[in-house]
Amino acid sequence: MTETVGFIGLGIMGRPMALNLVKAGYDLVVHARRPESMAPLAEAGARTAASPAAVARDAAIVFTMVSDTSDVEEVILGPEGVIQGVRPDAVVVDMSTISPSSTRMMAERLRAAGAAMLDAPVSGGEAGAKAGTLSIMVGGEPADFARVRPLFEAMGGNVVHVGPSGAGQVCKSCNQIVVGATIAGVSEAVLLAQASGVDPRKVREALLGGFAGSRILEVHGLRMIEGDYTPGFKSRLHRKDMRIVLESAQELGISLTAAAMVSEWLDLLVEHGLGEEDSAAIFEVIRGAVGET
Amino acid sequence: MTETVGFIGLGIMGRPMALNLVKAGYDLVVHARRPESMAPLAEAGARTAASPAAVARDAAIVFTMVSDTSDVEEVILGPEGVIQGVRPDAVVVDMSTISPSSTRMMAERLRAAGAAMLDAPVSGGEAGAKAGTLSIMVGGEPADFARVRPLFEAMGGNVVHVGPSGAGQVCKSCNQIVVGATIAGVSEAVLLAQASGVDPRKVREALLGGFAGSRILEVHGLRMIEGDYTPGFKSRLHRKDMRIVLESAQELGISLTAAAMVSEWLDLLVEHGLGEEDSAAIFEVIRGAVGET
Repeated sequence: MTETVGFIGLGIMGRPMALNLVKAGYDLVVHARRPESMAPLAEAGARTAASPAAVARDAAIVFTMVSDTSDVEEVILGPEGVIQGVRPDAVVVDMSTISPSSTRMMAERLRAAGAAMLDAPVSGGEAGAKAGTLSIMVGGEPADFARVRPLFEAMGGNVVHVGPSGAGQVCKSCNQIVVGATIAGVSEAVLLAQASGVDPRKVREALLGGFAGSRILEVHGLRMIEGDYTPGFKSRLHRKDMRIVLESAQELGISLTAAAMVSEWLDLLVEHGLGEEDSAAIFEVIRGAVGET
Repeated sequence: MTETVGFIGLGIMGRPMALNLVKAGYDLVVHARRPESMAPLAEAGARTAASPAAVARDAAIVFTMVSDTSDVEEVILGPEGVIQGVRPDAVVVDMSTISPSSTRMMAERLRAAGAAMLDAPVSGGEAGAKAGTLSIMVGGEPADFARVRPLFEAMGGNVVHVGPSGAGQVCKSCNQIVVGATIAGVSEAVLLAQASGVDPRKVREALLGGFAGSRILEVHGLRMIEGDYTPGFKSRLHRKDMRIVLESAQELGISLTAAAMVSEWLDLLVEHGLGEEDSAAIFEVIRGAVGET
């Protein structure tokens, strides 16, 4: 615990994750674009830095948790980016959800600078970040994973080393496909029940015990039935993730029909002003309440 | 247990279900089109009858477990059907998976003859039928459900009264939609992992703990990874059930895009001689190994 740990990006997810590292006793140096985002960390005892490069100069392990591929590229490779200050023995750990191919490119660039990179996207949302129970899907070298593992365990409950660089991001893409397709199936089941005059609560209850059972049926099924789309996981973020999925599919020359369908429905939600709602709101598109009229 | 119970249809599902009723101490009279299907029940102590009408003349509760809507219509309404012999106080319980609207029509016809009908399709397959752990989704009047409940509990583990006549079939349709869409999502995730050079076993392991977790990811995901499609639940039966789903959708004027997609993939499996394989083989269509070349 003598190594200094850097954390860049202190939004809805990054803030509670960084706080869990402070709580676990790590010496933290943090950076965020907006000074007010750094205040809760400073109060908790973390030092603040003026740029990602300044964080990197100070830290043996540098976490990044920002919004999208371009943000991570800016934070790591930009003019004030991590790579400008990174120590030769450092590990940079990106916990954002971004493109696997961009991840591999940045890992190469950091390797040329003598540093290592892990990709470690998470699932479990704000609630999981606060509780320290996130699922963390890690790509990179086993030795680097072993070095960072205790820190992952301060932030998450289910930490899996999936494979080499980019594998964590691929795993996160897989997660978002399965979640999206399951939401679609549950949506169509709820719609069929309602249109048939059958209570969807009873259907959900009957299905939970069998092969149709899932966390999505349990949690998102209830959101659909109650029409309460308090996130959870916002549609605009799920949409962003599905775009990453479809970009990867295009790069790989594979066709992902269900994922493309889910992505279109998320587009419709965002276009109709429902981007801040939980992505269980896909049900509203499927039942015809949102979309073309 | 003094009432005589009838059971018509002694195939892969019906035989073990009827045997569980004999084991529970019920006085059984059975019928099947093929005499050799009746032999195991006769050996276990059941009486045999020459026709569905003959079963109905003898029994206070009559179960039917046959293949498709037209088979149930023949067994219940045909010239030697249950309705020709049904007692005025009897309950006819169809446990086949068939059309909800045909179910309601038959319930009307039986009601006119003074008898009641429950629809009670199951999920859990041959293994669940043998073990007596089927999920049973029941539609019909509460009093009739209460009367038959002890017999359901001799055959199943998760017995839910979903609603009025047809509601059991609607619930089964919902089950098959969710199972199909989840198989599609898991298939695309496995494909993306493999195409990206990431071990799908690791991805499955990482995803099982989170929101993407489901019985389908656990069981069918493994089938896909191992390429072992020993059923389980046969593609041609899942296809039959998805046709019932799409017929209902058409009757109701609703659009079920994911269900239609799953149905097309199941068509392809059957057309390419994979109808006897587990419907997890949808993965073979999605990865491009089965279908148009």
